[in-house]
Amino acid sequence: MSGARPLLSNRASSDISGDRDIAEEDALLTGQPTSRTEKPTRRTWKFWREIGLFVWAVVATATVIILAVVYQNTGTNSKPASGKRNLIFMVSDGMGPTSLSLTRSFMQFQNGAPFSEQLVIDQHLIGQSRTRSSSSLITDSAAGATAFSCGKKSYNGAISVTPDHEPCGTVLEAAKKAGYMTGLVVTTRITDATPACFAAHVNMRSEEDRIAEQMVGDYPLGRVVDLMFGGGRCHFLANTTAESSCRADDKDVVGLAKMNGFNYVSDRAGFDSLKGGAGVELPMLGLFADTDIPYEIDRRNENDVYPSLHEMAEAAMKALSDATRDSDKGFFLMIEGSRIDHAGHHNDPAAQVHEVLAYDRAFTSVLDFIKNEKTQTVMVSTSDHETGGLAAARQLHSTYPEYVWYPSPLANATHSAEHLALSYSKHLLTSPSSSDTAAFLRESIESGLGIHDYHDDEVKKLLFAPDTALYQYADMVSRRSQTGWSTHGHSAADVNIYSSDPRAAMALVGNHENTEVGDFLRDYLAVDVDAVTKELREKGVGLMVQGVNGTTVGWMGQVPEEGQRLDGQTHLASYGGDFRKRGDGGVVHGEGCGCGH
Amino acid sequence: MSGARPLLSNRASSDISGDRDIAEEDALLTGQPTSRTEKPTRRTWKFWREIGLFVWAVVATATVIILAVVYQNTGTNSKPASGKRNLIFMVSDGMGPTSLSLTRSFMQFQNGAPFSEQLVIDQHLIGQSRTRSSSSLITDSAAGATAFSCGKKSYNGAISVTPDHEPCGTVLEAAKKAGYMTGLVVTTRITDATPACFAAHVNMRSEEDRIAEQMVGDYPLGRVVDLMFGGGRCHFLANTTAESSCRADDKDVVGLAKMNGFNYVSDRAGFDSLKGGAGVELPMLGLFADTDIPYEIDRRNENDVYPSLHEMAEAAMKALSDATRDSDKGFFLMIEGSRIDHAGHHNDPAAQVHEVLAYDRAFTSVLDFIKNEKTQTVMVSTSDHETGGLAAARQLHSTYPEYVWYPSPLANATHSAEHLALSYSKHLLTSPSSSDTAAFLRESIESGLGIHDYHDDEVKKLLFAPDTALYQYADMVSRRSQTGWSTHGHSAADVNIYSSDPRAAMALVGNHENTEVGDFLRDYLAVDVDAVTKELREKGVGLMVQGVNGTTVGWMGQVPEEGQRLDGQTHLASYGGDFRKRGDGGVVHGEGCGCGH
Repeated sequence: MSGARPLLSNRASSDISGDRDIAEEDALLTGQPTSRTEKPTRRTWKFWREIGLFVWAVVATATVIILAVVYQNTGTNSKPASGKRNLIFMVSDGMGPTSLSLTRSFMQFQNGAPFSEQLVIDQHLIGQSRTRSSSSLITDSAAGATAFSCGKKSYNGAISVTPDHEPCGTVLEAAKKAGYMTGLVVTTRITDATPACFAAHVNMRSEEDRIAEQMVGDYPLGRVVDLMFGGGRCHFLANTTAESSCRADDKDVVGLAKMNGFNYVSDRAGFDSLKGGAGVELPMLGLFADTDIPYEIDRRNENDVYPSLHEMAEAAMKALSDATRDSDKGFFLMIEGSRIDHAGHHNDPAAQVHEVLAYDRAFTSVLDFIKNEKTQTVMVSTSDHETGGLAAARQLHSTYPEYVWYPSPLANATHSAEHLALSYSKHLLTSPSSSDTAAFLRESIESGLGIHDYHDDEVKKLLFAPDTALYQYADMVSRRSQTGWSTHGHSAADVNIYSSDPRAAMALVGNHENTEVGDFLRDYLAVDVDAVTKELREKGVGLMVQGVNGTTVGWMGQVPEEGQRLDGQTHLASYGGDFRKRGDGGVVHGEGCGCGH
Repeated sequence: MSGARPLLSNRASSDISGDRDIAEEDALLTGQPTSRTEKPTRRTWKFWREIGLFVWAVVATATVIILAVVYQNTGTNSKPASGKRNLIFMVSDGMGPTSLSLTRSFMQFQNGAPFSEQLVIDQHLIGQSRTRSSSSLITDSAAGATAFSCGKKSYNGAISVTPDHEPCGTVLEAAKKAGYMTGLVVTTRITDATPACFAAHVNMRSEEDRIAEQMVGDYPLGRVVDLMFGGGRCHFLANTTAESSCRADDKDVVGLAKMNGFNYVSDRAGFDSLKGGAGVELPMLGLFADTDIPYEIDRRNENDVYPSLHEMAEAAMKALSDATRDSDKGFFLMIEGSRIDHAGHHNDPAAQVHEVLAYDRAFTSVLDFIKNEKTQTVMVSTSDHETGGLAAARQLHSTYPEYVWYPSPLANATHSAEHLALSYSKHLLTSPSSSDTAAFLRESIESGLGIHDYHDDEVKKLLFAPDTALYQYADMVSRRSQTGWSTHGHSAADVNIYSSDPRAAMALVGNHENTEVGDFLRDYLAVDVDAVTKELREKGVGLMVQGVNGTTVGWMGQVPEEGQRLDGQTHLASYGGDFRKRGDGGVVHGEGCGCGH
C-alpha cells in the first residue's frame, strides 16, 4: 500500500498501520485537527473516525480517477476505437528505408539545416512491413495493395482478387457499406494498381479500362467511392471522340460516372473551383492528367496546370469531413505518393527526393488536419515495396570507394530524366540534323540536369541510343551524386510504417506482414470485409462483360495464362540460370519499361 | 467517479450518489447485509455507515494499488531505471534493414518455414538510427562507435576522440568508475574500431597495436575492462617472439595484461575451461584467433577451434552476472556481430545471411539471460551503418527484370568467398600448372559454392585475376541469387534499433541520431561520462608514448594529416568529378580492400 499510493497522490511514503494513524495523516492533509489533540469524548472520537474514513475513501477514490485518466492517456495497449472515427491511409509507393535517408540529407543540404533536422515523417516511425506476395519474394503494387485492401496475400498483378481468381471484399467497400464516406487521392492514374485495389476487382492489373468502369460504379456493388482525385483521364474517355483517349473501346466512362451521380472536374481551373474542398459536392471525380501527374520536380514549374499531392489531399479531407459532419460515421481516405515508385524505376534520384518531399508535405497536411478535426482520426502510412534497390552510396571504379555521397547534383537538377527524355523524343520528331540534336542534348544536360562537366561520350551515347535516354539522363545524376541502384524493378526490402498515433496503431508497432496493415484498416473501422466478399461472389456468378474484340468475359476480366504473370512458388526454390544472360557486368541500361510498376 | 472505477475493479458501472448507496453496493460485494434490510437503530446505522465507509476506502485503495501496478507495467513513458541494473549493448556492424529481409527469407527457405516466420530480432524492432559522422554523410565504424561510446559525432577513423583530437570519456569507462563490471565480446579483432571505441582513445583507427596496449590498461585510466572475448591476438604478441605477431614492435601485450591482473586464454580449450562462464576469474582476456574469427559459414565446420558468438556472449553474461552478484552495481557488456560488415564489404550474400543468423542466435541468448537474471537488465541492439548498399533484387541484363530473388544459391554455398580465396592463394604458393589450377578452381566452385552451372569464362577470370578472386567468388553467388550491391564500402542508409524492453528504451523508439544511442547508454547506467573526459584530458597532458621508429608521440598517437582520413564538410557541398574515373559501368570488381572496415 505504501509503495503504491505515493505514485500520484503526492503523499509522503509511510506505513499506515491503523485507523488512528490514517486519521492523523488525513487530518494533516486536510488541515483538520486529529483526535489526539482534542482528548475527544467517545462521540467525537467516533465522529472523527468517520470523517477520517470518509477522507481516506475520498482521497483513494480521487486517486483512482487520476490514475485511470493517466492510464487511459498513456497506456501502451491498443484499445478498440469507439464512436465516430476517420481513417486516413497513406501509401508511399516504392519508398524503401533508404529513400528517407537520401531525401533527409538532400533536405538538410538544400536548406542548410543541421544533421539533427528530420523530415516530418521521420518523427512518426512506428515499425516495418514485410512485403512478399503469394507468388514471389518480390511483390508488385497490385499484390501489395491487395494485402492492404483485402488483408490477403495474392499474386503479382492481382487487383483485389485471391490466387484462385475470386474477388475479395476491400476495406473501402466495407466502409461504404457501413456508412462511411470514402475517397482516393493519387498522383498516378486513378486506375493504377494501388487505388484500383480499393474499389475494383480484376485478374490482371493491366486492364485499366475495365478498372475505370468499375471505379465509377459499373460492377456488382455499384458506386462505392465518394471522391477520386488523380490522373488517368485517358482511360475514362471514348477512343472515338477524344484524341487523348487511351481506351481500347468507345465507352464514355466520364458519362457513366455522371449517370452514377459523379460531379466531374478535369483541370486546374476545375480543381480551384472546389475551393480547397469547401466547394466539393460529392460524389466527385477529379482527373487532372491524361496519365500520370508530372513528377514534383517538374510539376512545381507547372503549378497552374496540375494540383499538388498535398493540395488534393487537403481538399479531399475537407470535403469528406464536411460531408460526414452530421453523420455517425466518419470517412476512409487513401492518399498515395504514387510516383516515388516511378522515380525508383527510372533510377532517378533527383526526381525521387522531390517526390518524397512532396509526400512529406502531404503527410504534414494530414497531421494538421487531424489536429483540427473534431472526429477522432488516425493516419497510418506505409509502402507496398521498395523500388530500385536504392543505396545512398555507389562505387564508381575499382579502387576502394571513399565513404561519401553527394546531395549537390540532386539539387542542381531542375527536371526529371522523364521530362528530358520526353523533350528529346519530341525534338527528334522534327527530323533534326545530328549537330542540331547534339546541341539540343548539351542544352538539356546543362539546363535540365545542371551538369556542366559532362563528357562527349555521354552526349554521343544519348545521340545514338535515344531509346534509353530516360535511363541515361537519370544515370548521369546518379553517378555524380554517387547514388546506387541494383535494378529498374522492385526489391524485397522491408518498408517503414508510420502513424499519427502509435497507440491507436499499436497493432502495427514493430515488424509486421503487409496483410496485418490490411487487418488494421479493417479493425480500426470495425467493418465487415468478409460480408463484402460474399456479396461480390454471389452477385458475380455468371456476370459477363464485353471483352475487347466483341467477345464476352467474366466481370473481372481474363484470367492470366501461366507465364503471363509473375507467379509460382517455384521462384522460391530455384533459379533458372538467368545470370547467363547478363551484359557487361552490373546493372546495364535497359530497354524502356514495358511493365506495370 | 462512475467512469473511472469500473476500469479495473470489475464492478458494474453505476452512479454512486451517497453513502447509503455505496454501503449497499459494497455490501453486495462483500456479502454483508445493508442497513436497509435491518431497519437499524441509530447506533447500528452509524456502525454500518462506518463499515461502509471503511469498505469503500479499502476498495478504492486496493484499486489504486492495482492501477498503479498495471500503470507501471504498461506505461509508455520512459522512467529512469533505479537500483542495480545491467546493460547489454549489441552492435550488428554493417547490418542495414535489407540484411534482415534477405536473411529472413533465407531462413524461411532453409527451414521450410511459412512467410509469417520471423527472426527473433524482428520481434523487437523499436526504431531506426541515422548514422552520419562529423566528416561525411557516410560513417565508418570508428565514428559510428564513438557516437555510441561517447555520445558525440566525430570524424571517420576517430577512436573516441573528438574532431579537435581530444579524448572523450566513454560509457564503459564511466561505468567502471561507477562500480559496474564491464565486458566486450566480438568476432573481429578486439582492437578493431567498435570494441576499441569503448576502452581506448587514438586519433587513427589503424593504430591497433596502441589500442591493444590501452585496452589492457596501459593508458591514463588504467584497466577499465573486466572481460574481453574476441580475435586479434596478433596485436598482443611481440614480433620478436611470436611468428603470428602482427605488431610493429616487440612489446608483449599479453604479458602487460597479465601484469595488470588479466587471466588469459587463447584457444578453444581455454574457452572450454571457462565452463560457460562459471569458471571465469576476472579480469579475463580471451583471444581466440590471430585476426578475425572466421565467418560463421566457415566456423560452423571448425567449432572445435573457434567458439561462436553466442557461446562467447553466454559465458560473458554468466561471468559478469556472477561477479556482480553481491555488488550494488551490475554490469555493462558490449556484444558485436562484427563480421556482418565484412560480408557486406565482400559483397558475399551467403556469408552475410549466416553472420546475421549467428547474431540472431546471440540475440536470443541475451533474451534468455534477461529472462532468468534477477538484476534488471536491458538490451539495446543497433548497427553503426549499412555496408554494401545491399538490395534484395538485382537486374542482370537489359530486359526489364522479373520481380524475383532466389535464396537457394545462398543455401548451396558451404563456404565464404573469403575462405575460398584464401585456399586459392595457398594453392598458388605450390607453383601449380595452369591446368592444375583450373581443376582446383572448378572443384572450389562446385564444392565451396555449390555451383555446377558455372561458365568457362568464370573459371578463366579466376585463373587470370587471382587478386580479385574474393570478389569474383562472392559475385558468382550474388548473381545467381540475384542479390544486388552498390559498393564494397559503406552506405548512408538508416539502420534499425531493437530492444528487449521498449519501455526502458523509450528514448530510442522511433527515428534517432546515433549519438542518442550513446546518450541512452549513459543515461540508463546513470554514469558521468563528462567526468571521465575531464580526467582523460587532465592526465593526458604532456603524456607521450613511444612511436614506431623510436620517436615519441602523444598518447593517442599521431594526428592524421589532411587527406589521410575521410573528413571535411566539403564532401557535403560538392563532388569532385569522381564519376569520370569509372570503368565499364556499374560496380566493377575492384582491388582487394586495403581499408579499415
